[in-house]
Amino acid sequence: MSLHLGVVRVLTQEDYEVTALHGRLIEDRYPSITTTSACIDDHPDGIPDEAAEKAAEPYVAETARSLAPTVDALAISCALDPAVDELQRTLDIPVIGAGRAVINTAQTLGGAIGTLSLEGGVPSYIAGLLGGELHASVSVPGAETTNYLTTDEGRRSIEAAAEQLVDDGCDVIAPICTGMSTAGVLPHIAAEQPVPVIDPVLSIGSVAMVLDSGHGVASPG
Amino acid sequence: MSLHLGVVRVLTQEDYEVTALHGRLIEDRYPSITTTSACIDDHPDGIPDEAAEKAAEPYVAETARSLAPTVDALAISCALDPAVDELQRTLDIPVIGAGRAVINTAQTLGGAIGTLSLEGGVPSYIAGLLGGELHASVSVPGAETTNYLTTDEGRRSIEAAAEQLVDDGCDVIAPICTGMSTAGVLPHIAAEQPVPVIDPVLSIGSVAMVLDSGHGVASPG
Repeated sequence: MSLHLGVVRVLTQEDYEVTALHGRLIEDRYPSITTTSACIDDHPDGIPDEAAEKAAEPYVAETARSLAPTVDALAISCALDPAVDELQRTLDIPVIGAGRAVINTAQTLGGAIGTLSLEGGVPSYIAGLLGGELHASVSVPGAETTNYLTTDEGRRSIEAAAEQLVDDGCDVIAPICTGMSTAGVLPHIAAEQPVPVIDPVLSIGSVAMVLDSGHGVASPG
Repeated sequence: MSLHLGVVRVLTQEDYEVTALHGRLIEDRYPSITTTSACIDDHPDGIPDEAAEKAAEPYVAETARSLAPTVDALAISCALDPAVDELQRTLDIPVIGAGRAVINTAQTLGGAIGTLSLEGGVPSYIAGLLGGELHASVSVPGAETTNYLTTDEGRRSIEAAAEQLVDDGCDVIAPICTGMSTAGVLPHIAAEQPVPVIDPVLSIGSVAMVLDSGHGVASPG
């Protein structure tokens, strides 16, 4: 089995290896997956909230369509799942959004879910997916955009926020910004906390691993 | 990374390698996972419906508890998720039920989900998880219990039922009995059909792969 996954980043960056970071995290955990990444234009602060998400949808759709012909499946590495519904309806390959992936994985592992978010709080989209299983939510103080998460201060804030969710009685922690994967602190937090901490980028890879060699996915090479 | 997963089978079988089949499927797809399996007593026909599920819960809980001390995480390989809530509340390791795993994976990949079930139809538990995303459901004719699925006739019936779900406009197929994984036809069906076909046993492994070395999961050995 092998799968070539196209990864759309919603943070505009110049260096391919920086753009490719989420894909590399997936490849490291799931060696049978290879990735090709591309980032959307004009979004140096990523997609910090739902208003920005609406505006970014055409950019995401365009970048996804440019990758689609050469990959077996697509990942949209943003927890707001921009353009995911539209792409699922119109492309003939599987499309995985980080939001659904992290929330659905969390729902499999527990029923009192705690979200870690940017300062804007829990987007209504995510709250809708969680319904009554949204037990508590903590915004990382100072995290107006994803770029704060990759500072030393940002990393410490993520750790403190996770601790607060455990104190609040959550049985699973769902970081709802893929910038928390970029920050590199989630493995450490998962090792420290007594409940599962779901990496949103790895949860994309996890869903991709279930895809078999059918449904538009090329045969093992 | 490595993870030792305990797999509870809800079909009573004498031969360990037969009981271990679901674990072997997971190990084959996810080489960093090792499994130890055990089956519940007194259930030669498995758990064919929700009435049987209630009665089986104490058996599942007992078997799970016997495996728990020696594994990093537990899987309950039955789509009705027997005893899963109780085990998640009371054990300090992650517990993964096949029902949540397959449904949540399907929900990540599409919004018009088709279920493949035993003759009893879609259990209310599964219908509740799917809500408005349950687009169509087909029962495999003749499949009063899981044992029928592993006959040649049963395999052909699963294939025909999957085809019907595609004709009905489903964008993802979720087999909601882990006996469909045992039957061995899902890879073939996935290769034939134009939409993702989610293997319920592999979806357990997929969720397990997201677990890191924290939260009760032993460090890589």
